[in-house]
Amino acid sequence: MEIILEVYNEYKKKIDEALSEVIQRESPVTLYEPLKYLLSGGGKRIRPMMLIFSCEASGGKFEDCLNAAVAIELLHNFTLVHDDIMDNADSRRGRQTIHKKWNENVAILCGDQLIGLAYEYLLKSDFIQIQQIARAFTEGIIEVCEGQSFDKEFEERNDVTVKDYLNMIGKKTAKMLEISAVIGGLIGNGDDKRIEVLKNFAFNTGMAFQILDDYLDITAEESAFGKKIGGDIIEGKRTYMLLKAREYATDKNDTEVLEKVLNKDNGSLRGDKLISDVKKIYEKYGVTISAKKEIENYTLKAEEYLHSLNNELSKSKLKWLSQMLMGRKF
Amino acid sequence: MEIILEVYNEYKKKIDEALSEVIQRESPVTLYEPLKYLLSGGGKRIRPMMLIFSCEASGGKFEDCLNAAVAIELLHNFTLVHDDIMDNADSRRGRQTIHKKWNENVAILCGDQLIGLAYEYLLKSDFIQIQQIARAFTEGIIEVCEGQSFDKEFEERNDVTVKDYLNMIGKKTAKMLEISAVIGGLIGNGDDKRIEVLKNFAFNTGMAFQILDDYLDITAEESAFGKKIGGDIIEGKRTYMLLKAREYATDKNDTEVLEKVLNKDNGSLRGDKLISDVKKIYEKYGVTISAKKEIENYTLKAEEYLHSLNNELSKSKLKWLSQMLMGRKF
Repeated sequence: MEIILEVYNEYKKKIDEALSEVIQRESPVTLYEPLKYLLSGGGKRIRPMMLIFSCEASGGKFEDCLNAAVAIELLHNFTLVHDDIMDNADSRRGRQTIHKKWNENVAILCGDQLIGLAYEYLLKSDFIQIQQIARAFTEGIIEVCEGQSFDKEFEERNDVTVKDYLNMIGKKTAKMLEISAVIGGLIGNGDDKRIEVLKNFAFNTGMAFQILDDYLDITAEESAFGKKIGGDIIEGKRTYMLLKAREYATDKNDTEVLEKVLNKDNGSLRGDKLISDVKKIYEKYGVTISAKKEIENYTLKAEEYLHSLNNELSKSKLKWLSQMLMGRKF
Repeated sequence: MEIILEVYNEYKKKIDEALSEVIQRESPVTLYEPLKYLLSGGGKRIRPMMLIFSCEASGGKFEDCLNAAVAIELLHNFTLVHDDIMDNADSRRGRQTIHKKWNENVAILCGDQLIGLAYEYLLKSDFIQIQQIARAFTEGIIEVCEGQSFDKEFEERNDVTVKDYLNMIGKKTAKMLEISAVIGGLIGNGDDKRIEVLKNFAFNTGMAFQILDDYLDITAEESAFGKKIGGDIIEGKRTYMLLKAREYATDKNDTEVLEKVLNKDNGSLRGDKLISDVKKIYEKYGVTISAKKEIENYTLKAEEYLHSLNNELSKSKLKWLSQMLMGRKF
């Protein structure tokens, strides 16, 4: 696996370099200064890597798909900037968000411009498959907006089911990984069957990753997770566990506690007490185990798709990527 | 000209129909309900018409470019929804804006989704020139974001020149008409020379149109204009006349009044008095006439480009469109 880590680091460096060259203009300063700030902020470059490894798994080369890899990272950053406005988030990756450091209008325009720049990079290289590639990319935008709309809607709704939740994270998180794989496969000239495999691998990996994020909120070590444990409970976030617990809970006392969480109505209850009460409910109805199983199911499903690939190195790279993504304490 | 009006009305009806069919899904409701509301709000469909007439002028047919015409109108609507948030506008086309009727998050997501839907429509038809078409479209997004960023920056800056202003409106207004013409020309299979002509015609028409909008703020009849006369002066808007007046004004009293307008610092001065004082300054330095001449220059330049087209009907249609656009009292 050492060798894959080296490849990852080499690719990451080249992606970071390319990203640092996206903004060539100085003015308007209120547009390009924040964008430069944003694009130098680092990140694991998961989506570009999914695109590149999928391109390689289809017979293509890193050089063929670097522009598209940059495009997908720009698109991902668009979602971060606009989501941060909507969620009123003060910081991201340890730095102030754009709407906090500048203002909301600046952040709206930066997000919009990131979509423009993303397409600019996607359309830089000449591919015969460009229409299919651009269509997949566009599908990504459409679904990610639907996903975020559902997510914001759910905050106000008390009738959200686990099924609704899975549909939402499919659109908000998994789809972007899916289109990364599909576009990589198309650039690599993969046949339909190969692309279908890569697509399903990426989608299921994305699903596992998002449920893991919920799961870690109550199971991780605070220092390893980097967020306050139980934060989702305090915020009344509609997580996999909360929704599952509501479906399973039969005891009136338990359902009352869960409704309080959903209504963000903690009453006189202290935060720590609420978190420990909810955790007990999760244990009682086996909800934490359900979440763990769901994550394992999606991960296994993803890996099963990989079996049909014939290139061992590509297979290892994709598996490594999914494990890296899932690599938080689990 | 009667016959062109008929063609326009027929095309407009088809565009409106197509727009009413863009949203096929019901949920997420917080995304698709506002988008349906927006897309049924009417409009003159100037940009789609520029695209269609340019396609015809290059040998293409209405049917070939309807999807692209819908795409350009969706893209235009994206700019309206996001600009209305930034300008804190309550109404548009006599109806509540999305961020007022719903909220800001909804409006951000609706704007984002309109970009996605715009590309979806642009990429619906199969064209050999799809890469060029999509590149032109993308250039439009990039420049319109730059234009809007400049516009918002100018509100806070006191050193804006007429040159800055012309650069800004070129990006914010004229570019979108330009790409409409270019995409129409590409779909119609026009050669490079033909497309260059259509591009310049559309760009110059757009410039004339935007300066006219400034000009009407102080010269139009209130009933015909539909806005309060002198509104731009009260708001301290950096219009062609205001910036030109500041460049021309020599009298200290005059420059003081103009600085007050730029600083939105009317002091004890009543609105009507301020408007009449500024209008006097505009007369004194010939600024209103300058604006009129600038509009005429851009209009003439636009029409000169048309001369080289050989199809008389197409030429008439494009001229009719530019006159329709400039058709407010002048």
